[in-house]
Amino acid sequence: LRLLVRHQAELRTRHGIAWRVTGVASRRLDWIANSQGLDPAELLRGEFPRPAAGLNDVRAWLRAARADVLFEASSLNIENGQPAVEHIRAALELGAHAITANKGPVVFAYRELSQLVAERGRRFLFESTVMDGAPIFAMFRDLPLVEVNGFHGIFNSTTNVILSGMEQGLSFEQSLERAQQMGIAETDASYDIDGWDATVKVCALANVLMGAKLLPPQVAREGIRSITAAAVREARAAGQRYKLVCRARRGENQAHATVRPELLPLTDPMAQVEGASSLVCFETNFFPGLAITEHNPGLETTAYGLLADFVRALA
Amino acid sequence: LRLLVRHQAELRTRHGIAWRVTGVASRRLDWIANSQGLDPAELLRGEFPRPAAGLNDVRAWLRAARADVLFEASSLNIENGQPAVEHIRAALELGAHAITANKGPVVFAYRELSQLVAERGRRFLFESTVMDGAPIFAMFRDLPLVEVNGFHGIFNSTTNVILSGMEQGLSFEQSLERAQQMGIAETDASYDIDGWDATVKVCALANVLMGAKLLPPQVAREGIRSITAAAVREARAAGQRYKLVCRARRGENQAHATVRPELLPLTDPMAQVEGASSLVCFETNFFPGLAITEHNPGLETTAYGLLADFVRALA
Repeated sequence: LRLLVRHQAELRTRHGIAWRVTGVASRRLDWIANSQGLDPAELLRGEFPRPAAGLNDVRAWLRAARADVLFEASSLNIENGQPAVEHIRAALELGAHAITANKGPVVFAYRELSQLVAERGRRFLFESTVMDGAPIFAMFRDLPLVEVNGFHGIFNSTTNVILSGMEQGLSFEQSLERAQQMGIAETDASYDIDGWDATVKVCALANVLMGAKLLPPQVAREGIRSITAAAVREARAAGQRYKLVCRARRGENQAHATVRPELLPLTDPMAQVEGASSLVCFETNFFPGLAITEHNPGLETTAYGLLADFVRALA
Repeated sequence: LRLLVRHQAELRTRHGIAWRVTGVASRRLDWIANSQGLDPAELLRGEFPRPAAGLNDVRAWLRAARADVLFEASSLNIENGQPAVEHIRAALELGAHAITANKGPVVFAYRELSQLVAERGRRFLFESTVMDGAPIFAMFRDLPLVEVNGFHGIFNSTTNVILSGMEQGLSFEQSLERAQQMGIAETDASYDIDGWDATVKVCALANVLMGAKLLPPQVAREGIRSITAAAVREARAAGQRYKLVCRARRGENQAHATVRPELLPLTDPMAQVEGASSLVCFETNFFPGLAITEHNPGLETTAYGLLADFVRALA
């Protein structure tokens, strides 16, 4: 919302887009809707009107808000992607574009939602789900005739920071604490440390870019718990680095993917990915290796991904 | 043409595009046109019909061919971009989309041609001019509200190969010979060695992505002739590499750009760019560093850039 407000004039003049916020919903706030528009300044100050009486599900809320676009940013359910899948489905069925930062709908329902998109003439966009809004999905939508045969990359910040910390002499626990202080790791960091975050991103990329039907349990996954600080420092002394590396490759019937610690030479571009930075390298029919690196994304980079999708949906 | 033929069915079914070749022109072949269509198989075998009588300029040729799209691939004129600028101008004025692999029109006439594009409702696309068809320009067209403040990168293969060869113990001349044997360097490689090729690419990127009006003589340019094999090997032994690095930055009134050998630590992603690979990293308002690396582009990668622009123009 802060970006929408800040770029209001450019959105209007450059892209012909005028907007108002007609609904807000969260577990805490419940379903708030006003099709006349809510005051963005009040919302940004955390001042919310009361939830509308009688609204108790996403469809009623979207109808009351007369939504043209839904920004979906609920938290990931790694079992089945709900309730985000239902949120997106509802938006598309009710004639709204659906934009999400939640990987669940992409991992668990990409085909079904793409079908809905084709039927309803609305857009389902999700650039913020992988690499904080760096234009991965957008790039491939504009690369006609390109077939992605595989990819590899570094997608998880917490494990990056922990491994770098151990190289510098910290213990695993000290490194994790530092990642938490940096605001990169959650209080319960096991989702990152055990490779689930990276795994879910691999599934999202594989399902969209290689037409796979990959679910998280089908990825050969190994986190970084087994890597000792001693092993990390020994590797570093020998000119190598441990990284949590993701790999996927198109197979006969199904994509094959791995997420696991790998020992990389310093000359591997993946070895240079630090902190919140990330990298993905695609093998395609026309480009043997086409890589995108996102260095030090800022606080607003993920939000930018949602904003860019908003403009794309309305273009 | 080979790619157009190979992907004929997909172009039709996926993109709704049918095509025929109605003209071919080169210094050697002169102006060949047949609005009924030329036989692609014959053209690919090098069998060309006689040039059409009475055709003696690009406009007459485009009219005789009834061109909807022009692929412009004449060689670069580093003084003023001609005759390619006139080829593109003619195409746009006669109602054809113009697609080029020639940096001249982008460097010398981007603003003027963009104005024509706006007036005539045709497209002027040039993805193959920088990094062999990797989607640089396409990516930024689809990054709304992004402002490029600067960029840096490695754009020239010949200097890459020469510097790597000297690291491995070859002399400058031996390295150059190897680059020529690899088909990377021209017989007269001074255009590469003295930094002109990289300079022209910097101007193309700056003019399109930062709205600059940068001409090659305005770039602070230094080639690699002054770098001795001894200096290269000494640097390598100390964990550093010489690379011909390009940098550009938005200025008050004009962009500032440099092309010169720089000593990079091995941990710099630019230090890992070898052979025909290339890298560009953009500093933007929303992405502190967004980099594209193209590893080992194949023979068809530049041609793919033209093909992709063809689909984009007709989409």
